[in-house]
Amino acid sequence: MTDRLANRREVKAPTGSELNCLSWTTEAPFRMLHNNLDREVAENPDELVVYGGIGRAARTWADFDRISTALKTLREDQTLLVQSGRPVGVFETHKDAPRVLIANSNLVPHWATWEKFNELDRKGLMMYGQMTAGSWIYIGTQGIVQGTYETFVEAGRRHYSGDLKGRWILTGGLGGMGGAQPLAAVMAGACCLAVECNPDSIDFRLRTRYLDEKAETLDEALEMIERWTKAGEAKSVGLLGNAADIFPELVKRGVKPDIVTDQTSAHDPVNGYLPLGWTMAEWRTKRETDPKAVEKAARASMKIHVQAMLDFWNADVPTLDYGNNIRQMAFEEGLEKAFDFPGFVPAYIRPLFCRGVGPFRWAALSGDPEDIYRTDEKVKELLPDNAHLHNWLDMARARISFQGLPARICWVGLGDRHRLGLAFNEMVANGELKAPVVIGRDHLDSGSVASPNRETEAMKDGSDAVSDWPLLNALLNTASGATWVSLHHGGGVGMGFSQHAGMVIVADGTEDAARRLKRVLWNDPASGVMRHAHAGYDDAVACAQEMGLELGLSK
Amino acid sequence: MTDRLANRREVKAPTGSELNCLSWTTEAPFRMLHNNLDREVAENPDELVVYGGIGRAARTWADFDRISTALKTLREDQTLLVQSGRPVGVFETHKDAPRVLIANSNLVPHWATWEKFNELDRKGLMMYGQMTAGSWIYIGTQGIVQGTYETFVEAGRRHYSGDLKGRWILTGGLGGMGGAQPLAAVMAGACCLAVECNPDSIDFRLRTRYLDEKAETLDEALEMIERWTKAGEAKSVGLLGNAADIFPELVKRGVKPDIVTDQTSAHDPVNGYLPLGWTMAEWRTKRETDPKAVEKAARASMKIHVQAMLDFWNADVPTLDYGNNIRQMAFEEGLEKAFDFPGFVPAYIRPLFCRGVGPFRWAALSGDPEDIYRTDEKVKELLPDNAHLHNWLDMARARISFQGLPARICWVGLGDRHRLGLAFNEMVANGELKAPVVIGRDHLDSGSVASPNRETEAMKDGSDAVSDWPLLNALLNTASGATWVSLHHGGGVGMGFSQHAGMVIVADGTEDAARRLKRVLWNDPASGVMRHAHAGYDDAVACAQEMGLELGLSK
Ligand SMILES: NC(=O)c1ccc[n+]([C@@H]2O[C@H](COP(=O)([O-])OP(=O)(O)OC[C@H]3O[C@@H](n4cnc5c(N)ncnc54)[C@H](O)[C@@H]3O)[C@@H](O)[C@H]2O)c1
Ligand SMILES: NC(=O)c1ccc[n+]([C@@H]2O[C@H](COP(=O)([O-])OP(=O)(O)OC[C@H]3O[C@@H](n4cnc5c(N)ncnc54)[C@H](O)[C@@H]3O)[C@@H](O)[C@H]2O)c1
Repeated sequence: MTDRLANRREVKAPTGSELNCLSWTTEAPFRMLHNNLDREVAENPDELVVYGGIGRAARTWADFDRISTALKTLREDQTLLVQSGRPVGVFETHKDAPRVLIANSNLVPHWATWEKFNELDRKGLMMYGQMTAGSWIYIGTQGIVQGTYETFVEAGRRHYSGDLKGRWILTGGLGGMGGAQPLAAVMAGACCLAVECNPDSIDFRLRTRYLDEKAETLDEALEMIERWTKAGEAKSVGLLGNAADIFPELVKRGVKPDIVTDQTSAHDPVNGYLPLGWTMAEWRTKRETDPKAVEKAARASMKIHVQAMLDFWNADVPTLDYGNNIRQMAFEEGLEKAFDFPGFVPAYIRPLFCRGVGPFRWAALSGDPEDIYRTDEKVKELLPDNAHLHNWLDMARARISFQGLPARICWVGLGDRHRLGLAFNEMVANGELKAPVVIGRDHLDSGSVASPNRETEAMKDGSDAVSDWPLLNALLNTASGATWVSLHHGGGVGMGFSQHAGMVIVADGTEDAARRLKRVLWNDPASGVMRHAHAGYDDAVACAQEMGLELGLSK
Repeated sequence: MTDRLANRREVKAPTGSELNCLSWTTEAPFRMLHNNLDREVAENPDELVVYGGIGRAARTWADFDRISTALKTLREDQTLLVQSGRPVGVFETHKDAPRVLIANSNLVPHWATWEKFNELDRKGLMMYGQMTAGSWIYIGTQGIVQGTYETFVEAGRRHYSGDLKGRWILTGGLGGMGGAQPLAAVMAGACCLAVECNPDSIDFRLRTRYLDEKAETLDEALEMIERWTKAGEAKSVGLLGNAADIFPELVKRGVKPDIVTDQTSAHDPVNGYLPLGWTMAEWRTKRETDPKAVEKAARASMKIHVQAMLDFWNADVPTLDYGNNIRQMAFEEGLEKAFDFPGFVPAYIRPLFCRGVGPFRWAALSGDPEDIYRTDEKVKELLPDNAHLHNWLDMARARISFQGLPARICWVGLGDRHRLGLAFNEMVANGELKAPVVIGRDHLDSGSVASPNRETEAMKDGSDAVSDWPLLNALLNTASGATWVSLHHGGGVGMGFSQHAGMVIVADGTEDAARRLKRVLWNDPASGVMRHAHAGYDDAVACAQEMGLELGLSK
């Protein structure tokens, strides 16, 4: 049995320009691992959980220590291997190779179930890496704000002529990612009612200014929504309750939100979703003592939850799955029409993926917010005509609290990413920034994931389930010299439902870094354009031509 | 629909020392791709099938052409990506990065079934890569001879005091891999009766001297076996028939072989296993017109086949699954005790894996058999005390016909592989060899595969299904500078049941190559020792200590 709490402690990423490791290429993963477990960043750092159900940064605290120790002495011609959050070997490689290679939660397909995973997890043989948790580039809730904002804005464009004023969004879940929803809604001009069963999560979002108000009863929450929408004010409220209770109640009352979605951790029926009628305390205990009973009850509740979403959908309310695989769970419970309403990627995001645009991000290893503000300015300078992006950066600066190391997320694509990376590298070189920055992205990106109920839902050529693509992405990033590269299974949608790859690269101001940045930040988004071009998307084919990619597309 | 026969032609690897591509690091994959489809090497080259059911080297002949064309102009700072046998992009990398990165047949686990694969295959979106077929390091049937030989020798040691004289082995299947069985048995001193339903396969093995005789009836075959075993002669006979018919018939007659196994392509119930009572012609047609009916009939026959194997097992005949997943198929058909008899890896091979020993191999790009004979001598010179290996090399030279480019297989492990690689590289440099050699291995190796019914069956710590390990192996080989690296799914045991990685590296006589050989041929087997050491095998822990690996094993 793994005792996740053993040796727990408070960690924070070191800041400033002094090294704890031999070089910035090892200092960077060292700081980012620490940052992922900072109490300001992680959902449940005591148990090494960063976000997304049980998405962890290291298998145990002892493994955290071993990884840290290994990184401290790792040379620039060595590579550390990490297997499901445990360091398993150091090998001689070379300067242009990654310093860390990570594989998390991967199971041979026939055994790729939560049941098998949980058994291995309990035995201490595995760890759930989610996406950026186990690959050390989670940057707090802001990581998802822009994606959620872009989705809501796009939904507003499609369904409400681009104007969300006086409109409101119903959703569930205010966790690590889901907590971004109220702020993103408000930024997009809408109100938001978010149902969350954990009072701590609500308070966390209030404290970090992602949420405006909280309510204990549905009446109270609806009263606020009515007041705000009437006044044309964009504000948000977190309602303490169970989504599987509140959603059907709203249907029964005939209340019609303007957009409906959900971000409870439905992908993990044992650890991520509170069953209907259960208290939080009951849930916590039973997760340990009777996980099967929890799973059964959670799945039954999800069916009720999704039925309510279908009712909204059938009443012409734009309804979308927000990537937590809740439709699949309900479908497996016998709800045949669960997939009637779409996922958010085919509905709103795919056109961006066709141009390699996705959740690009960077963090200032100095710990100094000024470093991020300077990069914000640099982005505006390098992309002078992108008004939407400028607007985003202004709002982000005004509204988003940094958590842990200051960081910025910014959806940009092929052709822009490497320019930003090279510019940041120069800013490090000439002292404009106080220390190096790390540059990475979510695994939810253009070329790095196969997830048929989410990122690759309804691909044009029917290749949703083909996972050659994210594996090629990881191999290519390794060959191109990213600083760390990871291959995960089960992120976002849970065991069996996805395979995906992560990459992070350091801009330490050296010429070595510039050479690698140019390759990695070009090849990585290019592999996304490649994936979509081969699937037959005209936008991607056009982008490939424009950018001069050699994809051998002629058939 | 993919027309696999369109544009079919005869191919042979170019030989000699003139380049068709810009460098030997691209010439090598160019020649090896051609070599895999040489009529002397491949089982069904017209349809691009190399071995193991429908294991292919390229998706279509048009893709073969595109890969060839891309390799011809690929520079040493570029990398070609291949997705399920189709070239999908060329990217800028660097000299120490692989020239080709390959991902074949990978499916997101929930969809990782033959049914889904076949649907995607028919749509032209996928290809089954088996292990060395899609990663271009298949070297004909000899590739498996030594492994089979080592297995039979070890079985003889365990069950018959090391003496197989007068003993006989019953098996099924004389295909690309299975065809090695009669020769391996004979080399190990035993007789062999191999049941094979395809007369062409029998004739192919006779022609290439892997098989001594053929028989049309069971009586005829048994008469030969009796005669040979009595005389203490080691000889082999291929019996034309269906294993699902012959095995139970032998049980019924009370005939007791000394060892029982099987190498039909049971891993692929649609394309690999002739149903009981069907003619070959019927089978071929129905595979196209009604694959579901074929699968159903094949699975039912496998149940009968495995029941007969269980009957032998229960009658105290050493019986083993030879890695074709036939136990799983029978189990799924309701044969609960299917897994009563063991797989060959836990039974005989794992102690070798603990020291990184596995099916290492190399091929002479010159096409000159003398180059292989010279490397044979070099191996003996560098490993002077390994009498077993010397014996193997002598027998191989005497009995094994080269197919396509001359090649040699030789099970060696960590500490030896890189020494051989560096020595071969020097032989190229100083002109002892006429052209470069490529050095690789099967995916069935110490650190490169997760396959719970085969290579990772019954691991000591219960980590059979954890596939982080082969993914790390592929990433590490990419970081170390192998010439090509591949990640496959479903090899050996079929869709859903395995994930595995391949690597090949060129010894072109340069110092660049020496640097890479030293890293790759050390790190690759070391990752196998790592995998077994972390699983708790004492042999592996001892090997790691002896070799000075940094595995962070202290807990
Ligand atoms: N669409 C995307 O871009 C995207 C990105 C990342 C994650 N996700 C998915 O979104 C989901 C949420 O991610 P997260 O990081 O916020 O997870 P999390 O586990 O940190 O948060 C989930 C929250 O849901 C709450 N919750 C659970 N059951 C509930 C119920 N019945 N009613 C109300 N609240 C309930 C929990 O208390 C928790 O606060 C996950 O499934 C994740 O995989 C989507
Ligand atoms: N143990 C190992 O090291 C190892 C290595 C590689 C492959 N394998 C597995 O062994 C199996 C055979 O591989 P291969 O490359 O020889 O495959 P193959 O498809 O080339 O050959 C299979 C042979 O079995 C014959 N066959 C099919 N059904 C039969 C039946 N009912 N009765 C008699 N003969 C029948 C076919 O005619 C064919 O000649 C595969 O499942 C493969 O995955 C094992």
